[in-house]
Order: sequence, then C-alpha cells, then structure tokens
Amino acid sequence: MKGTFIHGPRDIRFEDRPDPKIEKPTDAIIKLSAGCICGSDLWPYRGINKITQPTPMGHEYCGIVVETGNEVKNVKKGQFVIGSFFASDNTCPHCKNGYQTSCQHREYMNQAQAPYLRVPLADGTLVPTAEPPSPELVPSMLALSDVMGTGWFAAEAANVKPGATVAVVGDGAVGLLGVLSAKLMGAARIIAMSRHETRQKLAKEFGATDIVTERGDDGITRIKELTKGIGVDSVLECVGTQESMMQAIHSTRPGGSVGFVGVSHGVSIDGDQFFYSHVHLHGGPAPVRRFLPGLIGRVMRKEINPGKVFDLTLPIENVAEGYKAMDERRAIKTLLKV
Amino acid sequence: MKGTFIHGPRDIRFEDRPDPKIEKPTDAIIKLSAGCICGSDLWPYRGINKITQPTPMGHEYCGIVVETGNEVKNVKKGQFVIGSFFASDNTCPHCKNGYQTSCQHREYMNQAQAPYLRVPLADGTLVPTAEPPSPELVPSMLALSDVMGTGWFAAEAANVKPGATVAVVGDGAVGLLGVLSAKLMGAARIIAMSRHETRQKLAKEFGATDIVTERGDDGITRIKELTKGIGVDSVLECVGTQESMMQAIHSTRPGGSVGFVGVSHGVSIDGDQFFYSHVHLHGGPAPVRRFLPGLIGRVMRKEINPGKVFDLTLPIENVAEGYKAMDERRAIKTLLKV
Repeated sequence: MKGTFIHGPRDIRFEDRPDPKIEKPTDAIIKLSAGCICGSDLWPYRGINKITQPTPMGHEYCGIVVETGNEVKNVKKGQFVIGSFFASDNTCPHCKNGYQTSCQHREYMNQAQAPYLRVPLADGTLVPTAEPPSPELVPSMLALSDVMGTGWFAAEAANVKPGATVAVVGDGAVGLLGVLSAKLMGAARIIAMSRHETRQKLAKEFGATDIVTERGDDGITRIKELTKGIGVDSVLECVGTQESMMQAIHSTRPGGSVGFVGVSHGVSIDGDQFFYSHVHLHGGPAPVRRFLPGLIGRVMRKEINPGKVFDLTLPIENVAEGYKAMDERRAIKTLLKV
Repeated sequence: MKGTFIHGPRDIRFEDRPDPKIEKPTDAIIKLSAGCICGSDLWPYRGINKITQPTPMGHEYCGIVVETGNEVKNVKKGQFVIGSFFASDNTCPHCKNGYQTSCQHREYMNQAQAPYLRVPLADGTLVPTAEPPSPELVPSMLALSDVMGTGWFAAEAANVKPGATVAVVGDGAVGLLGVLSAKLMGAARIIAMSRHETRQKLAKEFGATDIVTERGDDGITRIKELTKGIGVDSVLECVGTQESMMQAIHSTRPGGSVGFVGVSHGVSIDGDQFFYSHVHLHGGPAPVRRFLPGLIGRVMRKEINPGKVFDLTLPIENVAEGYKAMDERRAIKTLLKV
C-alpha cells in the first residue's frame, strides 16, 4: 500500500510502504474509514520539529477491524472502532487513574495517514461501536480520535462548570471543539479568541457568545474589560506557545483554571508570576481513551457534530495539498478519503 | 513602642517606632498576645530579598482588639482575633471566590513583630473567637495566622483525598503543618522529606508514615521506589526553589497534583516537561482567611495543636536571636513573648 511520509519542511509524500501486519499477539489491523491531518502535524511541516529521516505521519483513525492477534479479546473482526493517538493497555495504574496517554506501555501512533493501520494493545486502545455508524457520522467519529477528545480534555482540565465564564485561546480544530465541550459542560459565557471569519462563525455555531480578536497583552486587556476586571473562570489553552500560555494564565481570575493541550513549544512559566496568579494549571496529551465511550454515544445519538471542523476533503493521494491548505490557513482541518 | 526592623542581611533590630493608630475608619488596633518569626522572613534575612531601607517585619498575629475605626462593625474592643498576612475586605469578587490573598484591596501586613498592630479592613480581615482562648492555646492560634493556614492550603491545592498517598517537600513549619493537614484530610500515607531529626520527629507526630532524606533527583527516585514506580497522588511543595519544585512535579503520578506555597524564588517551569508530566499545579499565597473559622474551631476543641512548631520562645526584645536560631536551623519556629 501507500502511506504518508514527511521528508523535511513542507515535503509531504504519499509513497509505497509495506502493508501493516500483526507484529504482536495484542495487535489489530484496521482498514481506515477516513484519515485526516492534525494541527500538530504542522509543527514538523513548518520545520519547528526537526525531521532527520523520512517519517510516517498520521495519528487519528477510525475504521473496520480486518485482523486481530491471538491475544485480542475485546475487539472483533468487522467491528467499527476508534482509538486515541497513543495506544494504551488501559490496565496499568496510570490508565486506571484515567491518564491513558501516560500509560506505562503507551505507543505513539504515527502511521494513520494511510488506508490500513496496525494498532498495538488493541484491547486497551480501541473502542468498538455497537454497530457501524452511517457514513455521514464517520467524520465526527474520526474527530473523536484526537481533536474532540483533546478539546474535551482542555475544558475538563480548565475545570469548566455550569454557569462558568470561559475563554478559549486558539481557533484551530481543537480550540473550536473546546468551545463545543465548554458548551456541553454548561458554560454560560464562552469567549473565543479568533481573527478568522470562518473560524469565528464555527465557534459561534459551537456555542461561543463573544469573539475577541486581540492577542497577547491586548487580548488579556480585552478579556479583563469583558469581565469587569476579574478575569474568566476557565481558559482553554489550545496553541502551545509562550504567548498563548501567558495570555491564558493572565486572563484567568485568581482561583480559576487553565487547561492546556497545545503541544508545548518553548514555553517557560515564571514561577513567581504563576505563584501570584493563583491559577490552577493542568494539561498535557489528552487522555482521549477515557472520553471515547461517552463521546461516541453523543455522536451516535447525533447530539454533537464535531466533524464540522473538516472544511476540506481530499483523496488521500492529495495529502500534501491538505497540509498546504492548513498551513496557509485556507482549511481548518482536512479529511482524507481512503 | 518598639518594633522589629531589618536593616540589611542578618541585621535585625528591635527599635523605637511610633505607636500604631487608626488611620482609616475601617482599621482596628490589636494588642498582640504573642508574635513570631516566619520561615519566609529568612529570605530578606539571608540577603536573597534585597533590603534598600530599614523595613518593619512580621506578618503573623493574634491578640486583643484595643481600638476600632468608626466603620468597623463585626469586630469589638476586647475580642480575641486572628487575621492573615494579607488584610482583605472579604467582599470583593476574589474574596467571594475564596482567594482573599488576591483581594482587590489587599494590604500586606509587615509590622507584626511588635506589641501593637494596626489591621486594615478589620471587618474583612479579622476573625474573632467566641471567647478568648486559654493561654496555652495562644501558640496554636498564632500558628493559624500563616503557617497552619498555609500548610492547609498546600494540602487543599494538592487535592489531598481520603486514602491518598502524599509527599511533603520542605520540613519547615509550613511543611510540618502540611503533614498535619494531609492527615486531617484523610491521607493514608504521608512521606515527609526531611534530613533533620527534630523535624522528622514532629512530622511523625503530625502523621507522617515515611521519612525520605534524599533530595532532588535522588529524592524523586526514592519516592518512585516507595510507590512501585507510580509516583504519589499529591505533593505539597513548601520551599519555593527550582529544585524543590522539580522534585515535587516529578514525584507526582500522572493526574496527581502539586500544591505549592513556598514563596517562589527564581523558579522556572519548563512547559514541555510539565506538559508530559500530566500534573495539576496550584498554589500561591495561601488564602488563610478562608480557613480561619474552621481551623479556629479545631484549635478551640483541642483537636489539633499546630503551636507545636514553636520550639523556641524568646522575649520580643531578643527577636534578632530568634532569626539567628532559625537561620542556623537550631529552631523550627520562634515564638516572641510580647
């Protein structure tokens, strides 16, 4: 088969590679129902994460099980399944504590921009649906594999409560689904920080009540103006830069919370400033596995439509164009037809 | 009267100064029942916080109200009262959210190593007891003004739950009372990190089940050994240095919490490391005012004896010797008889 590789900055190729096969008795092979490109894939694409050799890409997936190893018990051939970007055994102490992305046996998934995928620790990693979803639900199911679960974790880590005032830093797919998550958790006011009309529109559709276009210190000032100088209860930090992290911390009221899920790039938090901010800070790679059963139910019942973040659909052969469109912010998120 | 001033590193003087008087109608004047020296007073004493002019010292206090301003309603002359190291109105949004040390009108208290003290925002700041405590309870009441309330906040910020495994970094008065707080919150296992026999003994008396003498990376390794490689649920960081903060973060299991109350000195948290640690972080200047009513009740009912951290008592004239004894770690905490 062919699969997606990055060879260097802005050099994405869809090229021959061996078909995935069962390597361990706990593996499963799935045929993807669709693939996609993540905002975090743009870090290596833009040369911020260094690439030293051709590296396979893609960590979001859902599809049909086509083969299972001898020790796989919970997942059957023919089932529609979704997993997270980290494979996890779901039995170790960290998994039991709900932090499957810190699983003692975790394996990062990075070959999912391809028609077939090997999933390690299949019993722990994959969540099957009761029946295969109808085709129009597939984009939303795929979104659960990372961006929706990550937005949900951002809102949970930011301790969003019913009636809360919330700000969301970052208008990528994760930030937009953070808006949706905050709405589902009962936030009364959701301030989306965005400069892009398409994204502002989707943020409003997902539940944003206010849009702030300012960034950095100006963004903080604007949030303070909107909250009588108090700051918001919860901020979802969905970018991962120094500016976005400081914007998040200083927009939060004393005793409020920042949930951060933007993969940290060069961020340094001054202990002294943070001490006097009185802010709660929690985040990291979202333990999507914990949220999958609940979110799958919401998609199946058509309560949510996180698949709306896909505003560009391309055949997987054109994956390079999908990266380009996202890099140039012409697309929020690209769906790849396999 | 005379009061305590710092003139420079290791230069503490008890010298003439004007008697405090009502300056605003919301002020009260109290006659201290006892004074004391805080571990954080050692930062300027050791020259780490720069002193540019003679500066009054002391931020822990309890005593009898001797005068009140015209607008003071809740506090009466003759009452025994305790307040926190920040005066607060207890009515602003931050106070209502329970973060009185971030009060919009807060004033730092720094003249309490003296026989009399002016307390701003008396109605918000001071909590009167139903009746004056017996003299043997005064040290414990005084401990509530900062160290016990701060240890309590560390445990609360570290999300200590019944049955939890907890580590405490720092064996000063705050760390030791953090042990006591974790015990009161139902922790099943409390690991005190201490190298000093006197402090280890008191830690055990307060509820510590394990003592770890190693620090830094060795301390982290030891904590991991004691917890089957998992890390603890909660760490109370009661020092404020880079080493102690990293020790705290890396001793905590994914999903666990660090509560930090050591006044931050040169601490910088690497965003990337913190992202993958999956730790919750919260702290800052303890909102002691929030905890005073509950803790006063516990002292009055003799359920707790936080005054045990005072292992040296001196007449206030000898305050300089009290600093010296704490600096040289001959004393955990010095009580000053006024």
